[in-house]
Amino acid sequence: MTKTNPGRFFEDYRVGEVIRHAVPRTVGAGERALYHALYPQRHALYSSDAFASSCGLRASPLDDMIAFHVVFGKTVPDISLNAVANLGYAEGRWLKPVWPGDTLRSESEVIGLKQNSNGKTGVVWVRTRGLNQDDEEVLSYVRWVMVRKRDLDAPAPDTVIPDLAASVSPGDLVVPEGLDFTSYDTALAGEPHRWGDYEVGETIDHVDGVTVEEAEHMMATRLWQNTAKVHFDATVRPDGSRLIYGGHVISLARALSFNGLANAQVVAALNGGAHVNPCTSGLTVRAWSEVLDRAETSAPGVGALRLRLVATTGAPFALRAEDGKYLPDVLLDLDYWALVPK
Amino acid sequence: MTKTNPGRFFEDYRVGEVIRHAVPRTVGAGERALYHALYPQRHALYSSDAFASSCGLRASPLDDMIAFHVVFGKTVPDISLNAVANLGYAEGRWLKPVWPGDTLRSESEVIGLKQNSNGKTGVVWVRTRGLNQDDEEVLSYVRWVMVRKRDLDAPAPDTVIPDLAASVSPGDLVVPEGLDFTSYDTALAGEPHRWGDYEVGETIDHVDGVTVEEAEHMMATRLWQNTAKVHFDATVRPDGSRLIYGGHVISLARALSFNGLANAQVVAALNGGAHVNPCTSGLTVRAWSEVLDRAETSAPGVGALRLRLVATTGAPFALRAEDGKYLPDVLLDLDYWALVPK
Amino acid sequence: MTKTNPGRFFEDYRVGEVIRHAVPRTVGAGERALYHALYPQRHALYSSDAFASSCGLRASPLDDMIAFHVVFGKTVPDISLNAVANLGYAEGRWLKPVWPGDTLRSESEVIGLKQNSNGKTGVVWVRTRGLNQDDEEVLSYVRWVMVRKRDLDAPAPDTVIPDLAASVSPGDLVVPEGLDFTSYDTALAGEPHRWGDYEVGETIDHVDGVTVEEAEHMMATRLWQNTAKVHFDATVRPDGSRLIYGGHVISLARALSFNGLANAQVVAALNGGAHVNPCTSGLTVRAWSEVLDRAETSAPGVGALRLRLVATTGAPFALRAEDGKYLPDVLLDLDYWALVPK
Repeated sequence: MTKTNPGRFFEDYRVGEVIRHAVPRTVGAGERALYHALYPQRHALYSSDAFASSCGLRASPLDDMIAFHVVFGKTVPDISLNAVANLGYAEGRWLKPVWPGDTLRSESEVIGLKQNSNGKTGVVWVRTRGLNQDDEEVLSYVRWVMVRKRDLDAPAPDTVIPDLAASVSPGDLVVPEGLDFTSYDTALAGEPHRWGDYEVGETIDHVDGVTVEEAEHMMATRLWQNTAKVHFDATVRPDGSRLIYGGHVISLARALSFNGLANAQVVAALNGGAHVNPCTSGLTVRAWSEVLDRAETSAPGVGALRLRLVATTGAPFALRAEDGKYLPDVLLDLDYWALVPK
Repeated sequence: MTKTNPGRFFEDYRVGEVIRHAVPRTVGAGERALYHALYPQRHALYSSDAFASSCGLRASPLDDMIAFHVVFGKTVPDISLNAVANLGYAEGRWLKPVWPGDTLRSESEVIGLKQNSNGKTGVVWVRTRGLNQDDEEVLSYVRWVMVRKRDLDAPAPDTVIPDLAASVSPGDLVVPEGLDFTSYDTALAGEPHRWGDYEVGETIDHVDGVTVEEAEHMMATRLWQNTAKVHFDATVRPDGSRLIYGGHVISLARALSFNGLANAQVVAALNGGAHVNPCTSGLTVRAWSEVLDRAETSAPGVGALRLRLVATTGAPFALRAEDGKYLPDVLLDLDYWALVPK
Repeated sequence: MTKTNPGRFFEDYRVGEVIRHAVPRTVGAGERALYHALYPQRHALYSSDAFASSCGLRASPLDDMIAFHVVFGKTVPDISLNAVANLGYAEGRWLKPVWPGDTLRSESEVIGLKQNSNGKTGVVWVRTRGLNQDDEEVLSYVRWVMVRKRDLDAPAPDTVIPDLAASVSPGDLVVPEGLDFTSYDTALAGEPHRWGDYEVGETIDHVDGVTVEEAEHMMATRLWQNTAKVHFDATVRPDGSRLIYGGHVISLARALSFNGLANAQVVAALNGGAHVNPCTSGLTVRAWSEVLDRAETSAPGVGALRLRLVATTGAPFALRAEDGKYLPDVLLDLDYWALVPK
């Protein structure tokens, strides 16, 4: 038993420590194909070398969410194996494209700790960085989780709550080097709507639905080497269902959003997000978006849209009840910046 | 809602117009591996670089049906999103191998229109071409579908019914450049039967059966970026079943046909085909073939067989009832040309 | 019917004959990604080119079990299509890494035959070799199976029972050329435990469980081009369940063993193994290991551990009942050598 990783508990974290996560991973053509098999993903920049080349990139990068999932998955054994809740994300930025053949690893710095008043759990804030084989940062984000204590008598640490931005400032968005949307082909991309066609406050029903199967979400979650047992072991939950990895729902919703946001090609920043209700197999997931903000970038032909992306098993545009609580059929409320041709 | 693609309706098509379909796609090692995981595919030319090299090709091409599915998938948002039936195929020809790293896109020309007498639907004929990154045609085929009208008062177009060949003439078959079967290794290919061993009228029971799962057909159909919602959304059909993409059944049957037709390596032409009955998850699909014709080609050691390929959940060799209608357990009746070593 | 492969029956084998198995296969990035999606595999040497490079290899090889499954799968149509039981393995050795782009084929020599006293079946022993495109042996192992007779009147062959080693001698273990664990990074590998930390007799509960789905085991088994119909056809067994390929359970258990044996990177030899009870979809597979032996190797920093790996749906460390029979919840009892950093 002693050689098995029990995961860290709340009292095992110290503010300022940097955890190097295990199992670097080389990603490539196989991960790309599986991503397209597992999600109805169609954004042209991530589908075609020729299209990416026409947009100034040397090849089609791997989907931004592949980078996120691989980097995130590595943190699970050290951060969330004993987590009872995934509470939030902030200050997420994609800093460099991930190319086929790149090798990714992850590091997390503990930037906040707060024991809960019940004395049984606490909140841990980490800033996770994804690094490629040249030690270049490809992704950085903050996540906070509620983690159990192993020893209820362990003393509470000094409370440190990090000061996090409500959203990534447009000036901090990183546009992939060379990206140029001035010759962007909307016919090949699938829709005519450009940056200027979206208005703040506009909502889009992405119409399509996908019914989720156990085999699919488990294959996806394994591919990201995410080891949390609730995703794989039918004996964990009383009803035998497996809890679907929240990131699976993010990728499903993002892929569904193609229908109406086909030109929101690049995920540039993650402002925040909440996994509102659990997702399990057999549910039919739908998505809708709301345009929250618009911004210019300095790259040729490239604008930015700040978007709310909601995954739901219910009707579009319904988010919260009168009491302000999320409706029971809402799965995900995500806030991100996308790069869009002007 | 206005930014979402509602699909085209019957009155939106004009004879002679060319529709450039969206989302070009680079295909490679990942698609190949997934194809072999999703179908029991074993034809050696598409499995081994070494075998392909011994047959005069520079590498193992991607399976001919991968090319078909990728090219077909792109047409769905423009051609069959509002289709009520996929009526037929004709004049399909594979014109160039697809190599790992190639980027495919699709174009369709509307070549026929006929409003149905009910005034609610019409038939649209399109000739679809698959093109690679060098704008070379890799595949061309005619498909016709029955499409709903959006506006029942829209005037009926002039009826144009294209003149289609009953089958591709042997002289029009394109043999992949360099293909040479004179040193063909039947032991490595899996069976001793050569072109001359097959007789017109001969039938072959391919014996094996595959029970289909929801996760498999959805992964396959997504991989081809086919977006028709009936394949993914359990809430569309009253019984909660998802309608399996007809091409999934084609690939299943073709893979099963290895057992008896292991040397029918190359799919060279699609003469016609009917998706006779719907396929849903849980069914066990079997296949049988009938040799319809034989032809010579000018390539060294390469002959051609015209084959009927039938997918069924029932007994082999049973196709039609006494009234001439297809039996209820027949799923697919396909007519194609394959290239076979002499 | 005559063109379909009926498989070989017991009377079709002759001691000394060498069977060249069909359908060579080029493996690469797609197979690697699928392997990681189908199994919770995380050994760093097979996940990261950068990690493999730091261990003296030119790239990350394909998982040793991918080599095994591909080589094994090719033998099925000739060896086990009419087998009633897979009886054992011996003298398995991995001789060369398999790199992305390699093409594998298989050959088997019949090394033993013994008709059973019932006159209906017999035992066939074969030594199977996996060869790459340069005809180098990458893997060799002995397997024996019980095969049905087609013709019960066929004369019994002379009994030949091969003399097989109880386990591969440590001196016969082949370390991949260049492998050097002297700069091994345990943080990136995921666990601190080195060769010297494991004691003979020590047992490790790998803790995690994976519930198996039909789609997953069928995709895996097809990927290895294993054609045995019990794995795919729900109509074969009375209860409609599909019998899961024994190798699927091996890979599941090996992947689960990461948790406690993250540094048992290389599978170097297969001493023996028994598929004790059938595995079907819906079962939750767990694994535990026992350290059977330790040995030195001549490679820098590389030690060897002989490990028992047990897959079970029950409690850890329970293997046999008082009568010496395997417990009903044990699925697999495997005996192998792994290479581990010292």
